[in-house]
Amino acid sequence: MSKTTLFQVGTMQLLANSLLDGTMSIHDLLQHGDFGIGTGQGLDGELIILDGKAYHTLVSGESEVPDENFSSPFAAAHHGDFKDFGTAENADLEAVLQDTIDKLQAQNQFAAFLIEGEFETMTTRSAAGSQKPYPSLTEAAEKQQVFHGSKVKGRLLSYYAPAIYQGVTVAGFHSHFLSDDHDLSGHVLTGKVLSATVKVQKFDTIEQVLPTENPDFKAADLTDLSMVHKAIEAAE
Amino acid sequence: MSKTTLFQVGTMQLLANSLLDGTMSIHDLLQHGDFGIGTGQGLDGELIILDGKAYHTLVSGESEVPDENFSSPFAAAHHGDFKDFGTAENADLEAVLQDTIDKLQAQNQFAAFLIEGEFETMTTRSAAGSQKPYPSLTEAAEKQQVFHGSKVKGRLLSYYAPAIYQGVTVAGFHSHFLSDDHDLSGHVLTGKVLSATVKVQKFDTIEQVLPTENPDFKAADLTDLSMVHKAIEAAE
Repeated sequence: MSKTTLFQVGTMQLLANSLLDGTMSIHDLLQHGDFGIGTGQGLDGELIILDGKAYHTLVSGESEVPDENFSSPFAAAHHGDFKDFGTAENADLEAVLQDTIDKLQAQNQFAAFLIEGEFETMTTRSAAGSQKPYPSLTEAAEKQQVFHGSKVKGRLLSYYAPAIYQGVTVAGFHSHFLSDDHDLSGHVLTGKVLSATVKVQKFDTIEQVLPTENPDFKAADLTDLSMVHKAIEAAE
Repeated sequence: MSKTTLFQVGTMQLLANSLLDGTMSIHDLLQHGDFGIGTGQGLDGELIILDGKAYHTLVSGESEVPDENFSSPFAAAHHGDFKDFGTAENADLEAVLQDTIDKLQAQNQFAAFLIEGEFETMTTRSAAGSQKPYPSLTEAAEKQQVFHGSKVKGRLLSYYAPAIYQGVTVAGFHSHFLSDDHDLSGHVLTGKVLSATVKVQKFDTIEQVLPTENPDFKAADLTDLSMVHKAIEAAE
């Protein structure tokens, strides 16, 4: 159990190509870490794992413990070993994250961030689950719901990936949030920190599992990379 | 020790950005597999590992057991568990490899190939090691040596990576060769199979270590992805 390894199942390219079968159960994902983020089969909502507990944000915005059938086409997890980095006050979330990467000179490696405290604003989204034939990421985006909170206390988990990994995963920051009262959660679009602690964990290894037994994945033509990059830009 | 995991140190992007410090010793690399390929610090030649034994092709074309100081900026290795796939006769190497991927419907996953037998032709190259400041991949290519063989018996180890991993590694096939008499070896440019057996090993996981303690790597600006793709196209 390495604490310098980030585990990932699937690729961002799969989502961009509507390959949305859940290929890893929540049970199996939890074997790879006590912190993590992901989405459900058919883009069924958003997932966040904090201290070994998983929370599934539905498209309604409500969060619940995922049922045992929950499975994910794309998720990340790791064994938490966060180091205190400092505090942030009255700052845009993106700036807090980028500033931390810059100060750590960690722009070329994978890292995780845990930001805990009060947020002046927090905007999240959750996707609506679909059945086969799965929609495109663009079509799915039209059915997602966006939620706004202000003066909300909670925890944000963000993963950072270097630029060259775009498509393999989400390059830059990919953040999910859960408020302490569980009333606001999901994939983070924007936010502003009021007062929070910032913790960080750097990785030297990425371990990525591909769904090599999934028939749709095996058969797919995944050679159009420009499509992937456009879809990610539009969706993230 | 998973036989479905491909291990890799570094990225192809590092070579394209002249980040050529050796960051993993040959000793450590051999802990990750008994088959593998790579290059040495400063692009010092080509490496192939077969049945647990490493061979270092010098720019002269000679191959030798790497000395204990040999280290690599970019290498792949895995624990061999090859399955017989079939035989190939009188066929271009690229066609043999692509045909195998197609028949296995393995185009979206990592795989290794071991082709053993007689080759009608085999063209390899080896790079010349450089000291800091390291040259660009283009400058290094001008100093590489190309070797030709015909009716040569030997073993070829090739790794296949899906298209989305270009830059993270070498997308498509990346092959190194060692003749049975050790007189011809190196990074494979082209070849034609006369008569050979084809073995294959499919992976569902890639485990990639980045040189996160290397000062040049930490400081580098690795956000210009178009440069990477051009450099790889020119070099491979």
